Amino acid sequence: MILDQRRLPEEVVELRLASVGELAEAIHALAIRGAPAIGVAAAYGLALAAEREEDLEAAFDVLASTRPTAVNLRWALEEMRGDPTRDHALAIHRAEVERCRRMASHAAGLLGAGSRVYTHCNTGGLATGGYGTALGAIRTAWERGLVEQVWVGETRPLLQGARLTAWELEQLGIPFAIVADGAAAALMAEGEVDCVLTGADRIAANGDTANKIGTYGLALAARHHGLPFYVVAPTSTLDPSALSGADIPIEERAPAEVSRRFPARNPAFDVTPAELIEAIVTEEGFHRPPYAVSLPTTVHA
Amino acid sequence: MILDQRRLPEEVVELRLASVGELAEAIHALAIRGAPAIGVAAAYGLALAAEREEDLEAAFDVLASTRPTAVNLRWALEEMRGDPTRDHALAIHRAEVERCRRMASHAAGLLGAGSRVYTHCNTGGLATGGYGTALGAIRTAWERGLVEQVWVGETRPLLQGARLTAWELEQLGIPFAIVADGAAAALMAEGEVDCVLTGADRIAANGDTANKIGTYGLALAARHHGLPFYVVAPTSTLDPSALSGADIPIEERAPAEVSRRFPARNPAFDVTPAELIEAIVTEEGFHRPPYAVSLPTTVHA
Repeated sequence: MILDQRRLPEEVVELRLASVGELAEAIHALAIRGAPAIGVAAAYGLALAAEREEDLEAAFDVLASTRPTAVNLRWALEEMRGDPTRDHALAIHRAEVERCRRMASHAAGLLGAGSRVYTHCNTGGLATGGYGTALGAIRTAWERGLVEQVWVGETRPLLQGARLTAWELEQLGIPFAIVADGAAAALMAEGEVDCVLTGADRIAANGDTANKIGTYGLALAARHHGLPFYVVAPTSTLDPSALSGADIPIEERAPAEVSRRFPARNPAFDVTPAELIEAIVTEEGFHRPPYAVSLPTTVHA
Repeated sequence: MILDQRRLPEEVVELRLASVGELAEAIHALAIRGAPAIGVAAAYGLALAAEREEDLEAAFDVLASTRPTAVNLRWALEEMRGDPTRDHALAIHRAEVERCRRMASHAAGLLGAGSRVYTHCNTGGLATGGYGTALGAIRTAWERGLVEQVWVGETRPLLQGARLTAWELEQLGIPFAIVADGAAAALMAEGEVDCVLTGADRIAANGDTANKIGTYGLALAARHHGLPFYVVAPTSTLDPSALSGADIPIEERAPAEVSRRFPARNPAFDVTPAELIEAIVTEEGFHRPPYAVSLPTTVHA
């Protein structure tokens, strides 16, 4: 059972996925999305395949090919290979949520009192199968009394900020306002932003970080205004085999997500170079440049 | 009669505006929009008030208060004050279109062969009562065989790029693709952009330029990638009484344009500092920094 993220915030609808094919379609169509969440979903998918006595290698390939950028997907599938049971998937799920809570606690320490935080896309419980990465950090900081305002970039074309992050923040009672993605730099110029927190879909060995399209421009604007730009992501998002951002495949989605009538291009992610990132926060703690030295090379147990 | 820009590209509908009140509402609601176009419309509005023997000062005030940022509006109204006739409004309209053609011819000279131009919002015939500013320059450059591709930022929240600029480019047969506003920096990083051309709603004496929200972030990204960022606007957009961008009022529109369900902020414009602008092109030619010296202080006759 998954919460259908395409229907939020209008409707809270659960989807029952009874086969690997249905799960793969749900991931591809973004009914379930967010790098950690699709890793967890893929783990359950392999358990489902095993219980249904489907071909595990075929299931692996179908699930791995649903989204190319988030590395957590492939990581979770590799984890499951040796023990494709429901218990193992549950353990991966629990560990992912636990990582989120630990990294949120670390990352909240980056925020001062009265912080006005800008965030992009959705990195909350929905995106992670539990607590959240960047939005988890905001949640923990809010509970510590440190957050005055959250600016939510709406995140075109699919509005994960305006639909999902706004919905989560409303449920949590944290003050926020949605803005058009193009308004971020103006808010910074007006002195309305103290820091930027985002998640990640894949982090290369040198710290270059692939995340939702729009993140790179946000990091450039933050740098210009002297504001720290932090990435909050679990170690399952690290890809030591990608030496830099150039090695990260960027998903190009259907142009119709941008325009149903005219020609469009729709890269779903962009790469923020490591030099624009003040710190990367994982469940292990803060990692500062040079990231090739400071980032872990294995997933935290 | 105006073309209702809210209905494009789905429907081409003309609106008959029979009173100053109806015209003011059409400007406020963006049925007619674009700094030069609303100046022209306001000129017709004052002629309409004169023909209907309405109170001209009241008409002036109603029209002047529809949109705070575009200075062309107030400029055209001041022009009309001494001679609020239909012929004068027609002359202002013709002069505005003529200015566009001249500035387009100048600005097209900035582009090399095979140019891939990124533009934002709508600055074409729709926005100007005629030929266009930045989009007019692209049109002239296309006719000279210089344009390979136009990248159209969709321009949230009201999608003037995705609706209006795309519609105009399709009619003109110029190759283009719409992108989410957040994709601009990634396109630049990929080497897919040669220059950025935008219009302006108001240009201060020092060259600081107010334009559609998102322009400032675009200019920051262009600077980071070493790409020239050009502003193309008629001298009627200049406001010598504004010493810098800090003197330009920024219109804050209804949050519901961003989100109908959650809290939102909706600044309609931002200010791009002069130091990010490679050149400002008016009907008089190129103006280079320092703009306090190079910009004209009166409107070209």
